[in-house]
Amino acid sequence: MAADGAGRVRRFSDRLADSILRRRSVVCVGLDPVLERLPPQVRPQAAATAAAEAAAAVAAAFREFCCGVISAVADVAACVKPQAAFFEQYGAAGWQALADVVRCAREHDLPVIVDAKRGDIASTAAAYAAALFDGAPGPQGPLAGLGADAVTVNPYLGEDALEPFVARCAGGHGVFVLVRTSNPGAAGLQELDAGGRPLYLRVADLVARLGAAHVGEHGYSDVGAVAGATAPTSLAAVRQALPQAFLLVPGYGAQGGGAAAVRGLAAGDAAGLVVNASRSVIYAWQQDGGDYRRAAARAAEAMRDELARVVW
Amino acid sequence: MAADGAGRVRRFSDRLADSILRRRSVVCVGLDPVLERLPPQVRPQAAATAAAEAAAAVAAAFREFCCGVISAVADVAACVKPQAAFFEQYGAAGWQALADVVRCAREHDLPVIVDAKRGDIASTAAAYAAALFDGAPGPQGPLAGLGADAVTVNPYLGEDALEPFVARCAGGHGVFVLVRTSNPGAAGLQELDAGGRPLYLRVADLVARLGAAHVGEHGYSDVGAVAGATAPTSLAAVRQALPQAFLLVPGYGAQGGGAAAVRGLAAGDAAGLVVNASRSVIYAWQQDGGDYRRAAARAAEAMRDELARVVW
Repeated sequence: MAADGAGRVRRFSDRLADSILRRRSVVCVGLDPVLERLPPQVRPQAAATAAAEAAAAVAAAFREFCCGVISAVADVAACVKPQAAFFEQYGAAGWQALADVVRCAREHDLPVIVDAKRGDIASTAAAYAAALFDGAPGPQGPLAGLGADAVTVNPYLGEDALEPFVARCAGGHGVFVLVRTSNPGAAGLQELDAGGRPLYLRVADLVARLGAAHVGEHGYSDVGAVAGATAPTSLAAVRQALPQAFLLVPGYGAQGGGAAAVRGLAAGDAAGLVVNASRSVIYAWQQDGGDYRRAAARAAEAMRDELARVVW
Repeated sequence: MAADGAGRVRRFSDRLADSILRRRSVVCVGLDPVLERLPPQVRPQAAATAAAEAAAAVAAAFREFCCGVISAVADVAACVKPQAAFFEQYGAAGWQALADVVRCAREHDLPVIVDAKRGDIASTAAAYAAALFDGAPGPQGPLAGLGADAVTVNPYLGEDALEPFVARCAGGHGVFVLVRTSNPGAAGLQELDAGGRPLYLRVADLVARLGAAHVGEHGYSDVGAVAGATAPTSLAAVRQALPQAFLLVPGYGAQGGGAAAVRGLAAGDAAGLVVNASRSVIYAWQQDGGDYRRAAARAAEAMRDELARVVW
């Protein structure tokens, strides 16, 4: 996916920009499957007795549900963001379902950001990058990894822990570093004053430094930042610190953030941001009734249109 | 494992203290399996052609290798710490091998700290806790999780992101929060001055607050801290801030830290710390020759004895 017809690798930031422009949408659909919220037609029957079979049944239901959502929003979403945790709950079967969902999204030409928030010392971070991107060494050569286009990473361990991910940008991958998250307790650490500048902006400075060498044709870096819609003032400060970065903005919808939070934050020819909603899109059927795919498509369209008014 | 004969749950901190006292050892053996360093007798043959078969072959080799190390060090190590990343590289098969390795360690009555360094907003953090500890909802009731006794977590998202893990302490689980890591770039963020106190000590304060309600019979909290042997001054400051916490001290051995780094840091009747070495123990056969299990046991014994001189 990352190579054009002539075998050249196309940068992640350019592929994401292309997707945004082609769909005229900055919507990122978060894939957070939860057993008790699955629509009846994909919910696993309570027939399996062995635990391994039951986990496999849930994983199969997650696969069907997420692929159903993906095909429904494929013309409306700029990208999708599966959340690794919800799949990992179901062990090996869950991990395989996540790999299948990634492939499903890529078959629909949707860039996939795997939300895994990994972070570790360099040799371990390289192993995580192999796991999430394009695979580890095998007995006869490299094996397939999860196939993510981009991943989210945690900056607490510092620059050397981010580098193994950033090193993958040249191969067509992208990285979104957690800068200012969307949860209620985010401010506790992230807004601490760190020598005259809040910690999250110190992290933004690090993102700028790491990303400067990985800028694509559209003028965006492959090293982006996660900054939540629930803290609009901080979000604006992140944009100011990172004029070339793609921002991945969670917190829209169920978490309470609205389109107003991203007003004025677009940058460059392809907006330079994607706004994620998970539950308000994929579980729209619980509000609206009817087929879960149609409800997800309608919710994504409404979100696309609402965001268009403040972004373009 | 977390319940005694009368069905009462025994706290993680008490089980770890028991293990330390029974073996008179503060050694934590890190299980970081890497294909190219596997001993010849467990290395997978280059016969499998399909990628899925090759991944399964590597995962099976990891399982055999790690279980071999576990049985060799079972009388010498206080606990083991498998590193999730190395298993995740091999997809679903790798995840299953990790689950098998966890079970293998528990069969040897060794507490298992799964080094996963997760961190996410509350609902997602709860899913990670389910994945790593005791499982997620299934169609007919809860399913088996990875079975970890304790896990490592990343504090960057703040207190509400740690709480879903801390909430599991009452069920016999433990949490080690990254405070001051052992990598060369750790100081970049963690040692920033945050209002007159370095950031990592702000995190230590948070650990103290979260852990105060989860103290066992031995006087230790189930909420511990990761603090590296590569920064002895910071490590001492972490102990001062956290007199009741179990410290998980990485960086011994291959990363360059020595026993001197933990001199004076023992606290309470069971030392209150475990020191992790991974590569210098599990790959000791590459230095010493001979059977990898005997080499690992010898390396762990030498480490136990070296640490005993500064800890007891």
